[in-house]
Amino acid sequence: MAAAAAEQQQQGFRPLDEASLVAYIKATPALAARLGGRLDALTIKEVGDGNLNFVYIVLSDAGSLVIKQALPYIRCVGDSWPMTRERAYFEASALQKHRGLCPDHVPEVYHFDRAMSLIGMRYIEPPHIILRKGLIAGVEYPLLAEHMADYMAKTLFFTSLLYNSTTDHKKGVAQYCDNVEMCRLTEQVVFSDPYMLAKYNRCTSPFLDNDAAAVREDAELKLEIAELKSMFIERAQALLHGDLHTGSIMVTPDSTQVIDPEFAFYGPMGYDIGAFLGNLILAYFSQDGHADQANDRKAYKKWILKTIEDSWNLFHKKFVELWNKHKDGNGEAYLPPIYNSSELLRLAQKKYMTSLFHDSLGFGSAKMIRRIVGIAHVEDFESIEDASKRASCERRALNCAKAILKGRRQFESIGQVTVHVQSFDRD
Amino acid sequence: MAAAAAEQQQQGFRPLDEASLVAYIKATPALAARLGGRLDALTIKEVGDGNLNFVYIVLSDAGSLVIKQALPYIRCVGDSWPMTRERAYFEASALQKHRGLCPDHVPEVYHFDRAMSLIGMRYIEPPHIILRKGLIAGVEYPLLAEHMADYMAKTLFFTSLLYNSTTDHKKGVAQYCDNVEMCRLTEQVVFSDPYMLAKYNRCTSPFLDNDAAAVREDAELKLEIAELKSMFIERAQALLHGDLHTGSIMVTPDSTQVIDPEFAFYGPMGYDIGAFLGNLILAYFSQDGHADQANDRKAYKKWILKTIEDSWNLFHKKFVELWNKHKDGNGEAYLPPIYNSSELLRLAQKKYMTSLFHDSLGFGSAKMIRRIVGIAHVEDFESIEDASKRASCERRALNCAKAILKGRRQFESIGQVTVHVQSFDRD
Repeated sequence: MAAAAAEQQQQGFRPLDEASLVAYIKATPALAARLGGRLDALTIKEVGDGNLNFVYIVLSDAGSLVIKQALPYIRCVGDSWPMTRERAYFEASALQKHRGLCPDHVPEVYHFDRAMSLIGMRYIEPPHIILRKGLIAGVEYPLLAEHMADYMAKTLFFTSLLYNSTTDHKKGVAQYCDNVEMCRLTEQVVFSDPYMLAKYNRCTSPFLDNDAAAVREDAELKLEIAELKSMFIERAQALLHGDLHTGSIMVTPDSTQVIDPEFAFYGPMGYDIGAFLGNLILAYFSQDGHADQANDRKAYKKWILKTIEDSWNLFHKKFVELWNKHKDGNGEAYLPPIYNSSELLRLAQKKYMTSLFHDSLGFGSAKMIRRIVGIAHVEDFESIEDASKRASCERRALNCAKAILKGRRQFESIGQVTVHVQSFDRD
Repeated sequence: MAAAAAEQQQQGFRPLDEASLVAYIKATPALAARLGGRLDALTIKEVGDGNLNFVYIVLSDAGSLVIKQALPYIRCVGDSWPMTRERAYFEASALQKHRGLCPDHVPEVYHFDRAMSLIGMRYIEPPHIILRKGLIAGVEYPLLAEHMADYMAKTLFFTSLLYNSTTDHKKGVAQYCDNVEMCRLTEQVVFSDPYMLAKYNRCTSPFLDNDAAAVREDAELKLEIAELKSMFIERAQALLHGDLHTGSIMVTPDSTQVIDPEFAFYGPMGYDIGAFLGNLILAYFSQDGHADQANDRKAYKKWILKTIEDSWNLFHKKFVELWNKHKDGNGEAYLPPIYNSSELLRLAQKKYMTSLFHDSLGFGSAKMIRRIVGIAHVEDFESIEDASKRASCERRALNCAKAILKGRRQFESIGQVTVHVQSFDRD
């Protein structure tokens, strides 16, 4: 609190409201231009339903943009949980870097003001909605797997040692080391709190009280989570989004846009892939809670499973294609004079991708568990009003995640994983 | 070359010779004081028989010190291989950090001049000699294992996440990311060149030509080395010495001093441990080449094996003791409310140490292989004049290393490793 207050008073920072936001836009040509200079009748809507920041949609009759401002605390908890405003710098940096690598699926940044922790960026217009809401509504997105595979393959491959020299890689690592407060938040809420008695933990009580206690008493699970936590902190494999759940993705049937990379850092690739796949599995287990007489959601559940399979398989394909395409480039991890036959390179790729697959399953499971017994739950389950029914859906997801986390090295294909997921579909 | 010349011309840098060195000392109170102010009859000896730097021993009748200066290229190759002088900064930083953690085995830095890439430090006086020379001479060091276990346990534990907060850890990681040129040198000479045709590779020809070719054609070996190379670059587990072979250690029967950490960076702990153990195994295999009628070296080989075993076992013991002692400290990797029983903590430690053991065996083997078929060989073998005999010793070491590298995950104790080492003792 003292720290937060002190930081807020730093020169150049002031939290904006709608009135001061207009003045700010008028004084900032890069933003004013995006609104066609028509600044006298702006429509402004605060939509920061996220957990962390203030987000304004700004519309003129000639353009649109979004203004996102980070305040020196976590919005959903309040100023009792201070959090560096510098997360806005890392978010803007990651958006710009990832957009350079994958412009189809990352929105443009128009303006960044580090002192104000303020990003001006593309307004991702309707009918785009947050993917999580689409999944709750039972909407199929036929291009989602293809788009996310493209996004993950490009952002991860092109920021890894498979593409970059060690020199460039370590420059990036050093830069993002400073986003450590966000990494520590993840460490706490994903890798620590769910496995202990912690102030902000909650679950669908009383139904899941015993399940939550069982997580806290599961020695095997705790040994596995320690390994993943160490990997999360120590292993600088690629520039991650850092929070790639279905609430960080906006979609229409034709378009997929990834937003909110304020947790960006150099970490293990499997953390991003796992976040996406794990949240799809959560969506899967929530469907029974959304079924009604008009729609039993059975076909939709099949679509989710297919999307999980396609996402991994297409990611795998695209990633290896990028590797093959750039194998004679600057990347120093697999030098052509060493991996000098197509057969040897294929074996190396198989080993790499298998390890990445198991990492992804581990991190994905960890992300599922924390959404059921940790601080931040998902709307997929929260929107199931009947607590008993919600708990039943959550329990299946929790048991599935625990089993994947412990047994992840036994899976040889994503098809085996979706079969495994379905085996938890009955109580 | 152009880069090296440009760097050398940087303001404030000039390479010293004996005359200008005296003037420098006279102008530097921190150095003059160490010589008791008796600066008119200094004895100066250049002893930089290392590969990289100029090293002067400076003696007065009232004191002593060593001056080490990095030039903007690798000394042993010449100015055709430019190398940043900033390595001196990382060497001085690591010496100071590690000395703070383990003062018994790290010499004191008296003075550091970043512009001049110059370190003034303790003269590690006779009868200290380089450990490698002692091993060649067949000298037993009864405290070596104890001392090195102490050094490795303290420097690695206290710079890891077991002791530090993520915030402090990432600060260190970011700082040492800039020592990337030295990391790249290691990547090249340890993890790449030995597995391909490379300009500076050499071996005891013609005897080992086929053995070197076999390394370059060994698919299984190349898959393993790729994994280790990635781990070396990506995994910031602790602040390593980075070059902990037996030439970086000065000894008497009572004293062990670790020098030359200019390759220091945050990397996998097993790289340091492996460097030390691997070089002891090289020393072991070289003994038959040094045997003569007066000394068949059989007892000495037993002592080396015992030192290998004691080094790991004592390291293991001391490291776990530090972990237990500081388990309620700032380290966030294993929070007490999660690892809340002594049994669970013991299991976590067992898993951690087993993984570290296998990493150490992998890196140790890689270090052995590169000393036989790569650019930089070891005096242990080089001093065996009969090339045929030398090749025979080297071949055993090479075959042993290849087998350990491939099968490292099967070893459950260091005793199994020394049994394995002995099995290569016959052609």
